[in-house]
Amino acid sequence: MKKIVLREDEMPTRWYNVVPDIPNGLLPPLDPETLQPIGPEKLATVFPMSLLEQEMSQERFIDIPQEVLEVYKIWRPSPLVRATKLEEALGTKAKIFFKNESVSPVGSHKPNSAVAQAYYNKREGVKRLTTETGAGQWGSALSLATSKFGMECKVYMVRVSYDQKPYRKFIMQAYGGEVVASPSMDTKTGREILTSDPDTPGSLGMAISEALEDASSRSDTNYALGSVLNHVVLHQSIVGLEAKRQMEIAGEFPDVVIGCCGGGSNFAGLVAPFVPDYLEGKKIEFHGYEPASCPSMTGGKLAYDSGDVAMMTPLLYMYTLGHNFVPPGIHAGGLRYHGMAPIVSALVREGIVIPKAVHQLECFEAGILFARTEGIIPAPESNHAIRGAIIEAMKDPNEPKTILFNLSGTGVIDMPSYDNYLTGKLSDYAYPQEQIEAALARLPKIG
Amino acid sequence: MKKIVLREDEMPTRWYNVVPDIPNGLLPPLDPETLQPIGPEKLATVFPMSLLEQEMSQERFIDIPQEVLEVYKIWRPSPLVRATKLEEALGTKAKIFFKNESVSPVGSHKPNSAVAQAYYNKREGVKRLTTETGAGQWGSALSLATSKFGMECKVYMVRVSYDQKPYRKFIMQAYGGEVVASPSMDTKTGREILTSDPDTPGSLGMAISEALEDASSRSDTNYALGSVLNHVVLHQSIVGLEAKRQMEIAGEFPDVVIGCCGGGSNFAGLVAPFVPDYLEGKKIEFHGYEPASCPSMTGGKLAYDSGDVAMMTPLLYMYTLGHNFVPPGIHAGGLRYHGMAPIVSALVREGIVIPKAVHQLECFEAGILFARTEGIIPAPESNHAIRGAIIEAMKDPNEPKTILFNLSGTGVIDMPSYDNYLTGKLSDYAYPQEQIEAALARLPKIG
Repeated sequence: MKKIVLREDEMPTRWYNVVPDIPNGLLPPLDPETLQPIGPEKLATVFPMSLLEQEMSQERFIDIPQEVLEVYKIWRPSPLVRATKLEEALGTKAKIFFKNESVSPVGSHKPNSAVAQAYYNKREGVKRLTTETGAGQWGSALSLATSKFGMECKVYMVRVSYDQKPYRKFIMQAYGGEVVASPSMDTKTGREILTSDPDTPGSLGMAISEALEDASSRSDTNYALGSVLNHVVLHQSIVGLEAKRQMEIAGEFPDVVIGCCGGGSNFAGLVAPFVPDYLEGKKIEFHGYEPASCPSMTGGKLAYDSGDVAMMTPLLYMYTLGHNFVPPGIHAGGLRYHGMAPIVSALVREGIVIPKAVHQLECFEAGILFARTEGIIPAPESNHAIRGAIIEAMKDPNEPKTILFNLSGTGVIDMPSYDNYLTGKLSDYAYPQEQIEAALARLPKIG
Repeated sequence: MKKIVLREDEMPTRWYNVVPDIPNGLLPPLDPETLQPIGPEKLATVFPMSLLEQEMSQERFIDIPQEVLEVYKIWRPSPLVRATKLEEALGTKAKIFFKNESVSPVGSHKPNSAVAQAYYNKREGVKRLTTETGAGQWGSALSLATSKFGMECKVYMVRVSYDQKPYRKFIMQAYGGEVVASPSMDTKTGREILTSDPDTPGSLGMAISEALEDASSRSDTNYALGSVLNHVVLHQSIVGLEAKRQMEIAGEFPDVVIGCCGGGSNFAGLVAPFVPDYLEGKKIEFHGYEPASCPSMTGGKLAYDSGDVAMMTPLLYMYTLGHNFVPPGIHAGGLRYHGMAPIVSALVREGIVIPKAVHQLECFEAGILFARTEGIIPAPESNHAIRGAIIEAMKDPNEPKTILFNLSGTGVIDMPSYDNYLTGKLSDYAYPQEQIEAALARLPKIG
């Protein structure tokens, strides 16, 4: 068998919530004004109650609504694949498996949460969602999701991506999403930024601020976030739940589980369902691969910090480079975030997740090898996971270990980055630690 | 069930060759110099013997080599999906099923033949393949296929696409393919064209001539064609063989089978395995949808004609607009070919396939409706099939008929065409019949 494919009726019907299983638990999000734990009533202006309940939930399993399962079936269950040709090319005795989340209609794992978020908002009477997007993976996932539930969607897309990476903008529009370059004239925040700096390339932080302002100002509108938060990790757990069942069918249990880490959602989604096995004493490692150019776990510190530049979000207890950190523009879009999901951060704190940093050239090299052996061009983000799998397989090529990684997305909508790599336009860049320390020194002092 | 998914061990292990079942058979290809039936020895300079045997075969079933099946398993078997949300949006009692060939790593059905062609060439000692490509679907499929068998690949890509649609060029390069804009300085043909017209946008006809010259001039190199020929249709029959089995599992038999038609390969691949049912008297219709801007079946005539502008290919007996026909540039790339596969042409001649022409605006409208209901953005080519399915479903919305169409590709690598549609830059265009007649009058006189 090359692939293990589950039938639709074998798809998990409950998400797994890892929060109650994290030793020493999570610290609560704080109100940025009072620095006290934030209550759901304050967040309810931009989030539906059902998602806030999931955000705070201590239940281990939460039913997936039938309406969400129906949309998942457009592409789920996703295949688990044995990368036999990659193994042969490496000359390793390791078995390398990957969970193929690139098969969704927008080419990434992002719809796993987008569909759930759109559903719960719709059920609570919300007609319109706003969000921010960088390269466009999350924006296209949310546009797909809102189209399935007859909702409107407005995406604030970082201007430099809006201008230079039009394909995902067009994908959002094909699904009926409204896309504007951020900063835009549509919000007070955007107008102020444009007044002082008309030629700004924009940033994710600015786009978050605009999307939040829009959602706060309209009663029919909520806001949706594609990573970092607990309910996003919950929804992504379907990745690991399926993979675990598929590994069982293959007669395997992974020695190492690997994913790339930006905000942490695809990594946590794959890893979380295996955490109880770890806690029961099973021999299993979890490796989170982040770019050396944006090393929140390996270069940052665990602290309360804001999710956006304007400090409109609650303060989250997470590994962070400081919310003013601006990673170099040329590196993998989806991994350019200053913070790490509180769930992943807590797993790192407890020594359960081992963080690793890799450089982009070695990641693209791994991606090209993967394309020419396994036939699939990976997303630049996913190349970090592939690099990790190769490192693990080659530590001792004679050791017959079992490796599982998450192929979080396809590269075919991101081909200019491969062209930049193949034509020698990319270089490695490790963020200077002193600059990181300086950014961290500006964090709010809490406790 | 939303999708019917076969297990890998349920995948067909033989292709079906419809040629022996076509009433009154096919007329042989002719040597363009002698106008006599062309022998395999002349074609053997650019094709391997095993493919030439398949081209002439009268066997109904041909085993799929194990090595080809292994590569197919990267994405095959492909899903059969019930388009329930499209049905609901239309308010029809028809059941609409689609075979989802968009799931391959390059986003189309093209690898079904590319993988087989690369394999047979490799087996006969060929080290390098050349081909032409327009928008790049076929070139990317062949680059994927050659990478799987450790072969080199050189793709002559029509210059206007090379410059304006770089994503598929980058995909070919990621797989290790060499891509040049055609006309190029790498061939005598290319140099001559560039000398007389340095700013030519290129054409598929010029690119075919360059690829053929390259393959003819090197003993280690053969040529590969992505549509039209009998062996391509043979390889694509896996689409229909799987779909037939999946329809049986769904407890259905189609009243109408629909596909878009450019060279005819995806359409014939889906339709062929159902032709024996038709011949046994079962009630089933086959509708081939072509663009009104390039109407080979509905506007052309059945005649011997060349496959390329330079008349280097054998003369094929097919519906054609004349090999000098130049369709308008803006229309769906994959359907801009002057001829139609001899197999499809013969099925039209016998009244088994019913040809239809549609305009591009109604096709994009159908594609947008499909994206917003079924969640998948179709290739512009596939929109012609979706339009056909909608026409059929809405003839009498109260008739509970069963419709099956081929979703031959994804649109996510072709998004600028959707942007052109959504921003009002496209218009309908029916090629004037008098211009077609004039082009046809220039065809060689045979028999």
